[in-house]
Amino acid sequence: MATAGKVIKCKAAVAWEPNKPLVMEEIEVAPPKANEVRIKVRDIHLTSTQPRPYSFIHSALAAFHQHHSILGKISCKLIKVNRLDAVLLEINCTYISSRFTCRGKKVLQFSGTSTFSEYTVVNQMAVAKIDPAAPLDKVCLIGCGICTGYGAAINTAKVEPGSTCAVFGLGAVGLAAVMGCKAAGAKRIIAVDINPEKAEKAKVFGATDFVNPKDHSKPISQVLSEMTDGGVDFSLECVGSVAVMRSALESCVKGWGVSVIVGWTDLEDFSARPLQLIAGRTWKGSVFGGFKGRDDVPGMVKAYMDKKLKVDEFITHNMTLDQVNDAIELMKHGKCIRTVLNVSPQ
Amino acid sequence: MATAGKVIKCKAAVAWEPNKPLVMEEIEVAPPKANEVRIKVRDIHLTSTQPRPYSFIHSALAAFHQHHSILGKISCKLIKVNRLDAVLLEINCTYISSRFTCRGKKVLQFSGTSTFSEYTVVNQMAVAKIDPAAPLDKVCLIGCGICTGYGAAINTAKVEPGSTCAVFGLGAVGLAAVMGCKAAGAKRIIAVDINPEKAEKAKVFGATDFVNPKDHSKPISQVLSEMTDGGVDFSLECVGSVAVMRSALESCVKGWGVSVIVGWTDLEDFSARPLQLIAGRTWKGSVFGGFKGRDDVPGMVKAYMDKKLKVDEFITHNMTLDQVNDAIELMKHGKCIRTVLNVSPQ
Repeated sequence: MATAGKVIKCKAAVAWEPNKPLVMEEIEVAPPKANEVRIKVRDIHLTSTQPRPYSFIHSALAAFHQHHSILGKISCKLIKVNRLDAVLLEINCTYISSRFTCRGKKVLQFSGTSTFSEYTVVNQMAVAKIDPAAPLDKVCLIGCGICTGYGAAINTAKVEPGSTCAVFGLGAVGLAAVMGCKAAGAKRIIAVDINPEKAEKAKVFGATDFVNPKDHSKPISQVLSEMTDGGVDFSLECVGSVAVMRSALESCVKGWGVSVIVGWTDLEDFSARPLQLIAGRTWKGSVFGGFKGRDDVPGMVKAYMDKKLKVDEFITHNMTLDQVNDAIELMKHGKCIRTVLNVSPQ
Repeated sequence: MATAGKVIKCKAAVAWEPNKPLVMEEIEVAPPKANEVRIKVRDIHLTSTQPRPYSFIHSALAAFHQHHSILGKISCKLIKVNRLDAVLLEINCTYISSRFTCRGKKVLQFSGTSTFSEYTVVNQMAVAKIDPAAPLDKVCLIGCGICTGYGAAINTAKVEPGSTCAVFGLGAVGLAAVMGCKAAGAKRIIAVDINPEKAEKAKVFGATDFVNPKDHSKPISQVLSEMTDGGVDFSLECVGSVAVMRSALESCVKGWGVSVIVGWTDLEDFSARPLQLIAGRTWKGSVFGGFKGRDDVPGMVKAYMDKKLKVDEFITHNMTLDQVNDAIELMKHGKCIRTVLNVSPQ
């Protein structure tokens, strides 16, 4: 391998400051150390989170959920495994020491992946082998949002056949949750969003009803309770709002209702009256939909290849890494479901 | 039956005003209507709750969890079933219309039972047939606290063999939860209470460790995390404090920890950071330990008769209905575990 043991120079989008556009830079990527792999990034998809205040204080290679093939002689395709995100979320930049340098400065790793770069170095635990025939510009989505929402329904809520479900928030994660509820055999899937344009998309993924809380003067939990004779069996919060988390719990039926927090926020507490749980409800949460990435992502890719899992329907935009700031703007303003960025042409 | 269809006059302790002593009165108990039974109360045990502000606004027959035999020719013993407490808790005094009158005034039903009276009228759903050989002055405890705590461990948390558990608050409910954890095969049961006198009692019921949060400057969740290499598998909150509910959740291990709210309060919200659930924890609650009273209470009585369930160990005082206010004072000041009041001599 011509580059083995050598530094690779390549393009990357670097976050030098919080809340500022990323800057396209030439960076140096040092060779991997023990248990690490250096990877050429092909396609990535953009996702958002609410970072902790310090997430971007350090200049970091903001990067997420990539799909890549390993450089060199290993011919299998590999995709990120974020089984460790439950830990990553708290140790963020320390997951591996960064192998990145730019303009003589160390640039930190982000979220264990750092894929806004033509090359990156990750822990070997963060890669999984997938079907080499899988189109990378599609299945890169399986690295995060789809598994998160789909798995929250299947693995965390454990949605049951014939049940009634409500999904709050119809971004990619919420739509994947709708798809998960349908795959689990839910009879009725009520999609909830304050954006009426989401109604049609929700039906593509299996929603049977759409409710816009803005169309009602009553609390949404009361609206759902009346629609379902006492509340839904399962609710999934895919917004990241503590107020919606409470509504989602309160929308569940007493006795056996299960509500899952999928949306991410770490700036506020969620809360409810003890009676809401004592009445027999369960409140859960999960990261990456409870999937074990390295074990389960290949199966999700197979499900896509077998046409049992929708992926293409999430992709509304295709762009290149150079356009990353435009893509972030689209996402910030809710103008896309998912944007795929091509980082390195095939 | 000499009294069939007639009003019975008897003694009862009536709560005329909130936060005032009960008053021993002669009351009239009207005959039962359809689906109701009039019952002679033999032995009751005292328990406490944090009533909603309006619970005592109406003068009510404050009464709980009784053990009684039906009047007349039916010779089986019966014990209260509070399967419907999940509903009762919210409809309190309206569960059945009261059959009580005192000094010409209607006196309301309390919690569907009203057992601070020699005779009461309850819905037939609220009684269950138990072993006639069972000592009523002991098994009256099975009507509430014991099932609540024991079942919260067995049915709600679903404590697993070999697991590590923490029980917060060592009143009767907490001690029953400790017993439930032990019955489920927990390997380590950490009993937590700010009263050091509880340590010895907790061991009687199966606790392997006792921790007094006042002995530590660190938060109790951190103390437990360090004791258990990351947190307990199951925690049970048996206090009714929203702060303790949060501590109990935070004491659970990430990934699979389950925390159950058993203690009752409805005056404040409980809360936590979303990450606490997203990291893979589950927060649950239950009423009456998830038991179906009419189906399961007879089995719990059998378990006691078979010496598989401790009951006698909870009883620290035996008194009569006349002494109800003294018994309430003992309870208020934490001077008893459980007091049994004899209402009608055998």
